[in-house]
Amino acid sequence: MGHQAPKGTRDFYPDDLAVLRYIENAWRSASINAGFQEIQGPTFEHLDLYTIKSGEGIVNELFSFKRSGGDVDYALRPEFTPTLARMAAAKGRSLAVPTKWFAISNHFRAERPQRGRLREFTQWNVDMLGIDDPAADAEIIATAIHALTALGLTSKDIVVRISHREVVVKMLKDAGVVEEQIDIALSILDKREKMTPDAFAEITSKHGLKPDVFAQFDTDLSIQHEELTSLKKELNAWGIQDWCTFDFNIVRGLAYYTGIVFEIHERSGAERAIAGGGRYNKLVEMFNGPKIPAAGFGMGDVVLSLVLKDKGLLSRGETYLSEPEVFVVSASDEGDAIIASIISELRINGIHARRSYKSTRNVGKLLTEAGKTKSRLVIILGKELKQNKVVVKNMENGEQHEILKEDLLTYINS
Amino acid sequence: MGHQAPKGTRDFYPDDLAVLRYIENAWRSASINAGFQEIQGPTFEHLDLYTIKSGEGIVNELFSFKRSGGDVDYALRPEFTPTLARMAAAKGRSLAVPTKWFAISNHFRAERPQRGRLREFTQWNVDMLGIDDPAADAEIIATAIHALTALGLTSKDIVVRISHREVVVKMLKDAGVVEEQIDIALSILDKREKMTPDAFAEITSKHGLKPDVFAQFDTDLSIQHEELTSLKKELNAWGIQDWCTFDFNIVRGLAYYTGIVFEIHERSGAERAIAGGGRYNKLVEMFNGPKIPAAGFGMGDVVLSLVLKDKGLLSRGETYLSEPEVFVVSASDEGDAIIASIISELRINGIHARRSYKSTRNVGKLLTEAGKTKSRLVIILGKELKQNKVVVKNMENGEQHEILKEDLLTYINS
Repeated sequence: MGHQAPKGTRDFYPDDLAVLRYIENAWRSASINAGFQEIQGPTFEHLDLYTIKSGEGIVNELFSFKRSGGDVDYALRPEFTPTLARMAAAKGRSLAVPTKWFAISNHFRAERPQRGRLREFTQWNVDMLGIDDPAADAEIIATAIHALTALGLTSKDIVVRISHREVVVKMLKDAGVVEEQIDIALSILDKREKMTPDAFAEITSKHGLKPDVFAQFDTDLSIQHEELTSLKKELNAWGIQDWCTFDFNIVRGLAYYTGIVFEIHERSGAERAIAGGGRYNKLVEMFNGPKIPAAGFGMGDVVLSLVLKDKGLLSRGETYLSEPEVFVVSASDEGDAIIASIISELRINGIHARRSYKSTRNVGKLLTEAGKTKSRLVIILGKELKQNKVVVKNMENGEQHEILKEDLLTYINS
Repeated sequence: MGHQAPKGTRDFYPDDLAVLRYIENAWRSASINAGFQEIQGPTFEHLDLYTIKSGEGIVNELFSFKRSGGDVDYALRPEFTPTLARMAAAKGRSLAVPTKWFAISNHFRAERPQRGRLREFTQWNVDMLGIDDPAADAEIIATAIHALTALGLTSKDIVVRISHREVVVKMLKDAGVVEEQIDIALSILDKREKMTPDAFAEITSKHGLKPDVFAQFDTDLSIQHEELTSLKKELNAWGIQDWCTFDFNIVRGLAYYTGIVFEIHERSGAERAIAGGGRYNKLVEMFNGPKIPAAGFGMGDVVLSLVLKDKGLLSRGETYLSEPEVFVVSASDEGDAIIASIISELRINGIHARRSYKSTRNVGKLLTEAGKTKSRLVIILGKELKQNKVVVKNMENGEQHEILKEDLLTYINS
């Protein structure tokens, strides 16, 4: 009873974690190569960090708690942006312009687990603060694309759907939606693609909204908007225009976005969004910081892993694991006596060195065991130890050499 | 209001996180070089995973919660061992012998924050399952020492204090402690070093225990115990005898230890334990798994960081940050038009490339900015672009070359 991982969370055995680390490394390299620096915040925050700014969509999904006997409300972080904005606000005017930060952290949503959505997941966040220009939005999007490229994806697999809050609001108003209903209309538009036609009909009629208010967003539109025109130019400059499209179905659920918003999807639309982001120029200020414009995105590991798997871009987990440089086996009493000291010296010198824990002295069996680990070299501690020598077998070409025990480290490093 | 990190948690700005990553890298390398493979579990577990096995000491410090409207009790993980034992139990008989796992994860204790103790911290766990032999305990301890060595610590700075539950219990019984009071006596012994003499006197008298029951543990003792004699031989074989001492003051607070236990301390005793661990041969079985002997330790980042700082073994955080290979500046209209495409091409080819976001075309100022980033090369997009060329300045030796734009990538990689 109770002895399994909580619903919607994961146990990562070595093969599973190797895949996650492979993805995280692609994220980290893309971030660092683009001049972003890594930050991290607490796994839980004060509850009001989310209730005030993120909007209903996220607040309903929070895991919240108090300390036993305490009266402060906390919540496991459902997303990273509020933490980042809080940290930026705390730095105030001392924040460099631009400030380029990324984070790779676990997040939590208390929702029903389903394909692409878990209760705990890992998310990559990339944010640029201090520059209010579509050039910054383009650089953010390019950084996401560079990571996806490193993972083997192309513009044939992936589309970045770009929209703008102002344009969507103007379209809704032009279609007759009154000011008081804009928020609910945005929320319906945001969820429409994930709804059944019946559920959609029900919610629109419930709020007295005509369905054709939303139908307009499906038509191919060439809206004139200064920031979008400028962004289009920048996407061309970055050479990522093939990955990007303008699509006013996209609004993003979070309350704090102020301008350009985007989602990254698998092109067929079969999965949930791989990433989502946009410009949030007022959030740092809302946390009592100075006026600092900002834009960023979050990319989760769950949908991305599904897409990579579907496209055959993930190998078996074990292929991402580190293989030993050296495997040490003992085939003599003298070997048993010094195997620990040999291994200790190799490891302390930064060499990945494993050993057999079997009590057999059958060198054939021991070499088979070494072979399974894909070790580059095997060191055999045998009768040659009487001449103070060990046998080193190269597993790639099968060559064997007798080496003085003292020369082992030099030999391995050469 | 509420716009700061929760009490006892930390915001890691880039300089701070760089230090943590430096420590984590030492942990990860030592683990991988010793043939351990990384695993990870959920950040929260079912509450009963801890209430059943870990003992009072940890249960009082749990952050626990339910999902809103749900009835399942969860707790943020205070330690890793129960997760690891649960994961091992789930594999049952298919688990390899030995199984060598490590994890680097954040953990949570709802206690009063103080020097060396926070409410959220990062912990390295190293565990070997399947071998019930002091040789395994020695390899575990050696792995901890290899990581500490990589961080610059020596046996002059650090001591591994080794004890054995059986020996301590026998000593208590020989001193007249009755069976029913063994658990409370162990708990007092475990906390004694952190107590004031008054608090110690109060708790011993409260439980009717004579203080001299505990005084005996301070005397230099040469207890005869088969496992400890065997461990001593193994510590010599690993060449780590100078780091280790037998010390029966050590019992470890956790209920699941069954044999050898140890703590790693700064030698002067000024700080809390850097690490703690031991043998827990019955825990996997308690989680409905097969009988699998196991031993391991956990090492937190908080005390270790304090010790490294005190000994002058940590540089300023920024020195651990990645420096750019290339810094690109534009000093012409032609440069402005192509800077994004140049940077995009470099980054997509895995090169750490930054740019100036300043609107100035003063090359002197731009070079000063580049110099601050410690970039190896600066690419200047100037009037030479009319001949399809860019200027590359080597910031180490000051040399400048004009390169055809098309040859830039080849030039940088050479």
